[in-house]
Amino acid sequence: MHPDFQPAAVELVPGLPEILPLDEALLPGIRARILNKTKPPGSLGYLEDLAEQIALLQGSPELLQLRAPIMLVFAADHGIARNAVSIAPQAVTRQMVLNFLSGGAAINCLCQSSAMRFRVVDAGILEPVRVNSEYLRVQRIAPGTEDFSRAPAMSADQCRAALMAGVRIANDEIDAGAGVLGFGEMGIGNTSSASALLALVAGLPVDDVVGRGTGITDQQYRLKLDLITQGVQRVRGASMDPVSAMTALTEVGGFEVAQITGAMLGAAARNRVILVDGFIVSVAALLAVCINPQARSRMVFAHRSAERAHVMVLELMQARALLDLDLRLGEGTGAALALPLLRAACIFYNEMATFDSAGVTGVEV
Amino acid sequence: MHPDFQPAAVELVPGLPEILPLDEALLPGIRARILNKTKPPGSLGYLEDLAEQIALLQGSPELLQLRAPIMLVFAADHGIARNAVSIAPQAVTRQMVLNFLSGGAAINCLCQSSAMRFRVVDAGILEPVRVNSEYLRVQRIAPGTEDFSRAPAMSADQCRAALMAGVRIANDEIDAGAGVLGFGEMGIGNTSSASALLALVAGLPVDDVVGRGTGITDQQYRLKLDLITQGVQRVRGASMDPVSAMTALTEVGGFEVAQITGAMLGAAARNRVILVDGFIVSVAALLAVCINPQARSRMVFAHRSAERAHVMVLELMQARALLDLDLRLGEGTGAALALPLLRAACIFYNEMATFDSAGVTGVEV
Repeated sequence: MHPDFQPAAVELVPGLPEILPLDEALLPGIRARILNKTKPPGSLGYLEDLAEQIALLQGSPELLQLRAPIMLVFAADHGIARNAVSIAPQAVTRQMVLNFLSGGAAINCLCQSSAMRFRVVDAGILEPVRVNSEYLRVQRIAPGTEDFSRAPAMSADQCRAALMAGVRIANDEIDAGAGVLGFGEMGIGNTSSASALLALVAGLPVDDVVGRGTGITDQQYRLKLDLITQGVQRVRGASMDPVSAMTALTEVGGFEVAQITGAMLGAAARNRVILVDGFIVSVAALLAVCINPQARSRMVFAHRSAERAHVMVLELMQARALLDLDLRLGEGTGAALALPLLRAACIFYNEMATFDSAGVTGVEV
Repeated sequence: MHPDFQPAAVELVPGLPEILPLDEALLPGIRARILNKTKPPGSLGYLEDLAEQIALLQGSPELLQLRAPIMLVFAADHGIARNAVSIAPQAVTRQMVLNFLSGGAAINCLCQSSAMRFRVVDAGILEPVRVNSEYLRVQRIAPGTEDFSRAPAMSADQCRAALMAGVRIANDEIDAGAGVLGFGEMGIGNTSSASALLALVAGLPVDDVVGRGTGITDQQYRLKLDLITQGVQRVRGASMDPVSAMTALTEVGGFEVAQITGAMLGAAARNRVILVDGFIVSVAALLAVCINPQARSRMVFAHRSAERAHVMVLELMQARALLDLDLRLGEGTGAALALPLLRAACIFYNEMATFDSAGVTGVEV
């Protein structure tokens, strides 16, 4: 962990669930099972670590299960986007939610490809979509955040409400059978928010965490830097605890990010696999880990994007990503793409023959 | 390409099929289709390149198809393995073939996970398995190669026969409906053979291409280096064309490697996707590209292993790998793991909405 990394007090949100440490006494049994498979030790590389992690978080060296994986895409709007920091207008958040609901977005295609169920969560887009769809869940905190370059993005009450709304949807999906929860996001301006959150929580200079994105001009980029710096400096100047995840969320966060953070804490408390997507979802994961470090052991990181700030977030959590495909779309696309690797890890762990059963003497490396 | 890279004359094996250049005039149409999807240009990263490649090799900007993918695992024994260069005895090749046929190996699990059909090819293991199985294809060239440190691994006739046996199985599987052919291998000693092949074809020092493997002692490692050097030096000293793929295959190759090379040439001639696994299969791919550079455009590289020599092979072919998971098992495991990414590329290409159809103004990056 980064030296500046100070978990915020869980007491700030009394309703957050307890997350127990995993039972490391199970590790020898899990490792023995993997070691006795008909292959040279370690030759399935990171797939073996993944099987071990899933067995450990599921609390048993016996068969792994990835029941009814679901992708939850949280959408919200950001006041910061009223400034020209993005190539797209705020209206696109809502348009993309409608695109998700009509099944035509990248995340729809990739969920279909990975046999993953899908849900869009309206966590606070500007204008509600008013569509009746089994794929839509509405838990709006407000019609977008405030412009965090000028004022706190949300109130402390809104932040707590967003976290708890996240916990609720995680619980509902888990009650409905989900063993894996993938997380995606949509929100014009949310890369600015995620950059500010990272700068605050990790104590990093704003210049280091603001990606260039694609398609914005030099002028837009400098504006983006200035606005994010204003938000970050205001918090620091306000002599609040600058590394507190709760403070950061309130001051420069977003409703979708806060709900994702809450949902991850909820999923972790019930020992489900948390499948983390790209930069913005990884920042939400970092905040969850700040709030409760026990959440980390339930997280699987789907991909590493080309963005430098994403690599920083992964390093802060000592996370290895499964894929490295230069994805930078968000929506949960990396998480959906990575799901088959989790399935593969479970099938090899559950079904592969042992040296004894197969009558194999040893295998060349 | 490497400056020493001199394609061998195709005339050496008159029966090899012609491979036509792809029709690059299709590229603008393919790229336009991808560009109009509801996402920032390029934001699906390598998945977009993959969709473009598949569309181009299938010869149409219309819907992509990955019909009935099949994994072909070629197995053979190697005379070089009579020396103690490996942690496993030669008998393990046959034991693993039996393990494949009983469905308990890693590749069985991963093919199951990826919904990929599976076949084992006996290209020349020491002792035939005498099992009646729909999953077994027998096209034995001989009961293992000669020890290439002392003599040519095979005769020129055997080499040609192995290449043509590869072409035949590719044609048979394609006739049966396969749109994707994945390639795997099993053969105790075949990393030594692949290292020697790479050293010869690419003109690289033996020390650079011999992996340490896992579990062999310092003494075994030095022996391995010495034996491979003997094979490589003999060929060079014989004043044969040292960069000829055919010569290399004959002198230091293996029956499974030669059949894979032939099968790749067969699959390329019929514009099927060639899904390349790890180091040994990548060397077979390199030989196929040496024999006919047009084969390269049909190849998708599943993974990059931790082994330095594998990275070199990929670089020689300017290949980007889909996965980087420290796999070093072979059998085709990386190829099977990567197949879902190909499916995802096709689904996004075929089914994702366009900006016009979805009514989306633009999307933030």
